[in-house]
Amino acid sequence: MNKQTKPGTSKLKIIPLGGLEQIGMNITAFEYEDSIIVVDCGLAFPADDMLGVDLCIPDITYLMDHMDKVKGLMITHGHEDHIGAIPYILKQLNMPIYATRLTMGIIEHKLKEHNLLRGTKRKVVKFGQSINLGQFRVEFIKTNHSIVDAAALAIYSPAGTVIHTGDFKVDYTPVFGDAIDLQRFAELGRRGVLALMCDSTNAERPGFTQSERTVGKTFDTLFQEHRNTRLIIATFASNVDRVQQIINSAYKFGRKVVVEGRSMVNIVETATSLGCIQIPDNTLIDIEQLKNYEDNQTVIITTGSQGESMAALSRMASNIHKKISIGPGDTVIFSSNPIPGNEKAVTNVINELLKKGADVIFQDVHVSGHACQEEIKLIYTLVQPQYSIPIHGEFKHRKAQADTAVQLGIPKENVLMIQSGDILELDENGAEVTGKVQNGAILVDGLGVGDVGNIVLRDRQHLAEDGIMIVVLALDQYTGQLASGPDIVSRGFVYVRESDELMEAMHTVVCDAVQNCLDRGITDWGKLKGTIKDTLGDYIWKKTKRRPMILPIIMEV
Amino acid sequence: MNKQTKPGTSKLKIIPLGGLEQIGMNITAFEYEDSIIVVDCGLAFPADDMLGVDLCIPDITYLMDHMDKVKGLMITHGHEDHIGAIPYILKQLNMPIYATRLTMGIIEHKLKEHNLLRGTKRKVVKFGQSINLGQFRVEFIKTNHSIVDAAALAIYSPAGTVIHTGDFKVDYTPVFGDAIDLQRFAELGRRGVLALMCDSTNAERPGFTQSERTVGKTFDTLFQEHRNTRLIIATFASNVDRVQQIINSAYKFGRKVVVEGRSMVNIVETATSLGCIQIPDNTLIDIEQLKNYEDNQTVIITTGSQGESMAALSRMASNIHKKISIGPGDTVIFSSNPIPGNEKAVTNVINELLKKGADVIFQDVHVSGHACQEEIKLIYTLVQPQYSIPIHGEFKHRKAQADTAVQLGIPKENVLMIQSGDILELDENGAEVTGKVQNGAILVDGLGVGDVGNIVLRDRQHLAEDGIMIVVLALDQYTGQLASGPDIVSRGFVYVRESDELMEAMHTVVCDAVQNCLDRGITDWGKLKGTIKDTLGDYIWKKTKRRPMILPIIMEV
Repeated sequence: MNKQTKPGTSKLKIIPLGGLEQIGMNITAFEYEDSIIVVDCGLAFPADDMLGVDLCIPDITYLMDHMDKVKGLMITHGHEDHIGAIPYILKQLNMPIYATRLTMGIIEHKLKEHNLLRGTKRKVVKFGQSINLGQFRVEFIKTNHSIVDAAALAIYSPAGTVIHTGDFKVDYTPVFGDAIDLQRFAELGRRGVLALMCDSTNAERPGFTQSERTVGKTFDTLFQEHRNTRLIIATFASNVDRVQQIINSAYKFGRKVVVEGRSMVNIVETATSLGCIQIPDNTLIDIEQLKNYEDNQTVIITTGSQGESMAALSRMASNIHKKISIGPGDTVIFSSNPIPGNEKAVTNVINELLKKGADVIFQDVHVSGHACQEEIKLIYTLVQPQYSIPIHGEFKHRKAQADTAVQLGIPKENVLMIQSGDILELDENGAEVTGKVQNGAILVDGLGVGDVGNIVLRDRQHLAEDGIMIVVLALDQYTGQLASGPDIVSRGFVYVRESDELMEAMHTVVCDAVQNCLDRGITDWGKLKGTIKDTLGDYIWKKTKRRPMILPIIMEV
Repeated sequence: MNKQTKPGTSKLKIIPLGGLEQIGMNITAFEYEDSIIVVDCGLAFPADDMLGVDLCIPDITYLMDHMDKVKGLMITHGHEDHIGAIPYILKQLNMPIYATRLTMGIIEHKLKEHNLLRGTKRKVVKFGQSINLGQFRVEFIKTNHSIVDAAALAIYSPAGTVIHTGDFKVDYTPVFGDAIDLQRFAELGRRGVLALMCDSTNAERPGFTQSERTVGKTFDTLFQEHRNTRLIIATFASNVDRVQQIINSAYKFGRKVVVEGRSMVNIVETATSLGCIQIPDNTLIDIEQLKNYEDNQTVIITTGSQGESMAALSRMASNIHKKISIGPGDTVIFSSNPIPGNEKAVTNVINELLKKGADVIFQDVHVSGHACQEEIKLIYTLVQPQYSIPIHGEFKHRKAQADTAVQLGIPKENVLMIQSGDILELDENGAEVTGKVQNGAILVDGLGVGDVGNIVLRDRQHLAEDGIMIVVLALDQYTGQLASGPDIVSRGFVYVRESDELMEAMHTVVCDAVQNCLDRGITDWGKLKGTIKDTLGDYIWKKTKRRPMILPIIMEV
């Protein structure tokens, strides 16, 4: 029985529209009566079987259906998995955006590219500041992460307060700005928090994530050890603190800094203009000026730490970078760990760099931006939420947080492992999933949004696996007899010039099958095509154990 | 200047035909005057961009060109990257095979499948035994690895002795058989070893690889902790010792054992028949008998520890296994680490199992089969080779071993980082690469060996990325005018039913282009096709930023 009886008091609905089945595509709707607010609006990178797809954005049908209720979009921080879908979503549903300074700077850069800057209301929010949106009030709370200006959100509703951590870690000695505002988490916990939605990315890892500053010390050591070579350091473009620390070490050791890679240049510009990064005068130089300095007087900060094939470092490794070539006088440092799925690509780049004689350092020059188990325990202990809703991570990460929450004394039934699309209704008297809304990934390929779906992907997978055989023939519209063909054209099946025999045999098989049909008076195109597909398909399977796509095309003349 | 002067004394040639640029496809020819012996004959799994390819085998053109010299094939151990290409290569070049007992058992299973058993000379070699082959003598030396009966080879030639470790580790307390024969390595070292070819797989890792027996202790603990659930343990089929230890724990805790997955069943059968695994009576049961036992009385040993989509564990995880379904009463143990490149697939399986309520244990239930740095140092120190030739591993692994060799006092110029195809000529007076032989991967797709090459792969990649647009038209052979078409058929480009407008616009573009050509009297098919490709390609790029393959087909009627 539902114990809720107080009249006029509704429950809070939490509806994640993405982000709970994979890394990326984070977006959650919070609904109370006539008000909806949206938290984050990220993209996901396509899975391996999504051939040719550039990126995935969330399906916001539910928001479109309740357009009039939507009050605004709150963004926790400026990473692609939290902001990357904004331009695409805004084109469907315009709403005001609320974010902290650097986050907004990065978003505005995107909006400019998509010609959306003018038409979008934006408000830069300070830490500690609250925004009123319909029945909600949202407070931005300082956290730490691998990008500056990350925020947790305290979402106040008549049904209670929810704390959403965003992506976070606890860094007592951050490079820029303050440590996470633990006092505020404590204060809110003391007053009573209905639910905690906490980052699960590192929930499997025991202990405490190290401070970003420890990487700065490592840089100093590496600069000291490699003072006779050029230094090339690859890291995530968005990790402004990391870039700051490289610049600090460069300045200390009297080296000039080149920033290379489009996204790296963009973020450094944005961060500098907002005062989130301090670059001493005469430190940055243009890539063209490299030749005016000795190798050991320069550092190149570059993109490509994930082995992305078109990023600057990969282009250097494969000798197609126009300005920088790698040799024995170089030390290349990966200040990053491979994101799961990128291991092979990163290793390939490392192998290429080593083959060119460079010294390559790819371990222990990175710390994570996500909370490990002890940090998660700290936040739970400060916040003391009634409900735990693990977010951000694959199922196994969220499950690990759920186990931690239970260890900390949250009753098992109050740990809510929800899925994207679930409508979770809750207040202090209870929490349950009461329904499901449309959700999923909309695929973006080139300029097309949503025009590549399962059928197209299945075709691409089929084509990728064994290629295509096209059988064309022309039928005389009066006699119903062959006017030309059948001809066979193949792509991606075998190297035709060296497979004469097979190609000829296939041609014979198809000719016989078609003639047989026509002789028996079968002129129905569907049947004719079916016969071609089956006969040729069987023959090819028998001869090669392959199943190319077979596409009969009939013309009438 | 070449210091070699003793008349009639030739140099030894070492010619790796694969295995030095990637994991897999290990095969090396040793040549002295009129004698060639071949060591190992492995396959490699296709790289991510080798779409539709099943496996890769080495190019043995060099051996074919010197067929009369080839005396035999020595196999170090029974893993696919060392034996997987044998059936394919034997069909080109028959030669006698020399291997230890279990290795030969596994090879014979393969030969049977390919109908090659009768036609192939085979000799099972004991550890310590030597084989005379032309000018070579080859001795098999006991080592330890993640498969039983692994051997190192001492290859004696008039130019000196080469020690080839195969894949190995140093296990003082192996589960089956003896520890690695360190005394023999020492003895050979004392007499003088020209070159050491040593496994580099773990050369980046400091320390010592743990004994296989430590995993046995872990199993005992896990069986103790999870005595109320069914146990499902995934590991590498070929790791006979691991299977033995699971059986030992099962017996100790009174559980029945089911072996599941085709390759697991095969290897356990082979190993049992050769006495390499001991199974107590009444321990193994058939999968059909599972229903006769309580969950906590059974253990299922299964394939699929690498997340392979068709392996037994993956089928259980995705609910398509016919006999076993996973639920909250199951504990699934991954007794393996993901091989680089398989991380995502393994994680997907783990997530699916967790979602079904199973307890999943995937860390610290495995030890490697390869030597870490301290073991590599031990072997170098025993063998004291004149030359170091790091093998088995990507460039970065081999480079790590090269660094270790230099640390141990091998002169830098005696550490030979060779590549597949290199002809390395050496004797005690010097070593140099004197030439290059044809080498590389031959791709196997279905029954086709070598009929898929770069052109076919490029087409498959193109098709996978953006699909195909086929433009067909029929020309009247007398008038040169259109008899039918142009029609457009697409696959893997867009979902056609929802893209009417685009499809129609493309049709118009093509019609106009073709008509324009015909009006200007252009009837050359090449020009016509070129025009269609360019016009349609430009239009599609402008509208969609995609580049599908465009395939014009012209028929004459």
